[in-house]
Amino acid sequence: MVEDLRVISADSAAAILDAKFTPLRIVASASVLVDPPYRETHFRLAEPIFKEVANGYEVIVHEAELCRDLLEKVKADVVHLDMSLGAISLEELSAVQLSNMRISGKAGQHLLKILPRLRKIAGEIKRRHGLEVLAIGKESVPVRIAELTAGAEAILYACAKVVESHEPILLGLPTACQHRIAGSKVYLYSLMAAEHDVRGYAEDMEGFLNKVKSVEMLNPVARGFRILKITPKI
Amino acid sequence: MVEDLRVISADSAAAILDAKFTPLRIVASASVLVDPPYRETHFRLAEPIFKEVANGYEVIVHEAELCRDLLEKVKADVVHLDMSLGAISLEELSAVQLSNMRISGKAGQHLLKILPRLRKIAGEIKRRHGLEVLAIGKESVPVRIAELTAGAEAILYACAKVVESHEPILLGLPTACQHRIAGSKVYLYSLMAAEHDVRGYAEDMEGFLNKVKSVEMLNPVARGFRILKITPKI
Amino acid sequence: MVEDLRVISADSAAAILDAKFTPLRIVASASVLVDPPYRETHFRLAEPIFKEVANGYEVIVHEAELCRDLLEKVKADVVHLDMSLGAISLEELSAVQLSNMRISGKAGQHLLKILPRLRKIAGEIKRRHGLEVLAIGKESVPVRIAELTAGAEAILYACAKVVESHEPILLGLPTACQHRIAGSKVYLYSLMAAEHDVRGYAEDMEGFLNKVKSVEMLNPVARGFRILKITPKI
Repeated sequence: MVEDLRVISADSAAAILDAKFTPLRIVASASVLVDPPYRETHFRLAEPIFKEVANGYEVIVHEAELCRDLLEKVKADVVHLDMSLGAISLEELSAVQLSNMRISGKAGQHLLKILPRLRKIAGEIKRRHGLEVLAIGKESVPVRIAELTAGAEAILYACAKVVESHEPILLGLPTACQHRIAGSKVYLYSLMAAEHDVRGYAEDMEGFLNKVKSVEMLNPVARGFRILKITPKI
Repeated sequence: MVEDLRVISADSAAAILDAKFTPLRIVASASVLVDPPYRETHFRLAEPIFKEVANGYEVIVHEAELCRDLLEKVKADVVHLDMSLGAISLEELSAVQLSNMRISGKAGQHLLKILPRLRKIAGEIKRRHGLEVLAIGKESVPVRIAELTAGAEAILYACAKVVESHEPILLGLPTACQHRIAGSKVYLYSLMAAEHDVRGYAEDMEGFLNKVKSVEMLNPVARGFRILKITPKI
Repeated sequence: MVEDLRVISADSAAAILDAKFTPLRIVASASVLVDPPYRETHFRLAEPIFKEVANGYEVIVHEAELCRDLLEKVKADVVHLDMSLGAISLEELSAVQLSNMRISGKAGQHLLKILPRLRKIAGEIKRRHGLEVLAIGKESVPVRIAELTAGAEAILYACAKVVESHEPILLGLPTACQHRIAGSKVYLYSLMAAEHDVRGYAEDMEGFLNKVKSVEMLNPVARGFRILKITPKI
């Protein structure tokens, strides 16, 4: 009767900031598989994206693709995307419904633009695996775990970039979380109320963490957000 | 000059969930007396209700009755109900005012339906004890303590049901809290920011806690909410 | 490339409450200098104000003056005021724009009333120091640190008043924070999610803390707020 729902979710996270803390580029996307008790993940696909924030709405399409790709490797029961539309199934979401939802001007236009591509991927997932793709967004714990996982991967991608370029980076972390390094892993712990046991992590296979210095600070112009200032070690 | 305000409040909490985490029935109601420093309660009336979520708005009437009944046993200075209407006194709340408040469609209709019964109970409390009944809802710490107390009692009621029926139950806990068992008591601690020292509890007089296993997980489709999966031992 | 932004900010905090926990007077204003990592301050100007809550909107003008005065003593790169208008520069904020922002009735009128004085101070700061004054409000961590600093100073001012008057005071603290006394300092720690390492403090140069007793309680009618009941030591 009480079964164990396995969720595949995806999100993009962390941003390169300029010196005034304005986000310039979103750093990483990840899809993850999340099982009960829904606190962390051990299966993920992650990619560096370094996508301009201005075109940020496009990343959701790539996130859906990462979910589809992860489904080739692991089984799941449902897919959660980072769109907060009341957990409606993408299959059922037509352009007409979307306009009825009265989503504010620009956001609605962006959604309308990517909807055909999203519905196509959702259709593939339905046909191949029989799963629904839900636009559940901020209500989903698996989406939060995808965000923290993408954020942890982003720390490694940013470190790699600092090592290559010998230039410091200001990396804006996802909302309400804090990193911790343990061995070759970088963890991103949620600081959100009631999420003290929720986290993501990434494994530093190539030793980038040892080649940089990183200092944590609070983002002074965005409460709840922390920043890593990553600089090359000499 | 600075007196110690004693508050009687009530709330209902915890829900039986189906396998997709949809709430089916609200489990328990409780009224409590809360004194300074307003962190917990030692006087309560609690009842199992197992009320369909669809008729959830009806529970507020029963909550008001539980406040009235508790007032027969302990003294207080004011009554707090779980209706978030800006702490208006129920006595002063007419159907006309309610419609002026522009509460969204369904919620407004539900309130209108139960208002006569609520005002009747508020009138009784006023005549008998001289106290105001306030529709203060989410601004009230005593209402939160009633919620945590009802949630703790709900854990025991759910355990009893699992023992009787030999069927597992998914119990959705109130928002942002976590249970802990200590001796014969089950505590429900708030995980809300700035409520780290706020809690409710219930006493397991009949030893139900020992007859079940319970596993905590996060509700994957409702961030901030935790679930207990309660199964019979053996 | 990645510079260290120094912020001067200001806020007013803490309120004398009546026995029903209604705020009567705002107790203190403070301006502070906040450096990376943006967790606390070591430079401040603080003043007792005991201003009627009904005229609370007036305090923002005094806060701007305290920023201007602090700039005579320490260098900074930008000024943050506790007005949540999307970080717009006060210089660019005309009465016309303000009315276009559709701020709700009373708040808009209050802002309109103080806008000329605010713009005058912002103009002085621009001419003398070349800095922008931003209406950033709740998005600013430095404004939060100013709030916690003003709150800590307010505890000392309230203690002084209790010592003088031999009357107890109910002091409402800023949202989501908790005081701790260490030596001659009173700290105010944020309890907000993701602000566990953010705090303000005040130094008790005249030994008022030892001349009173203070008991912490939760504000029963305003969730997230704590109260100190301060009474004279015999």
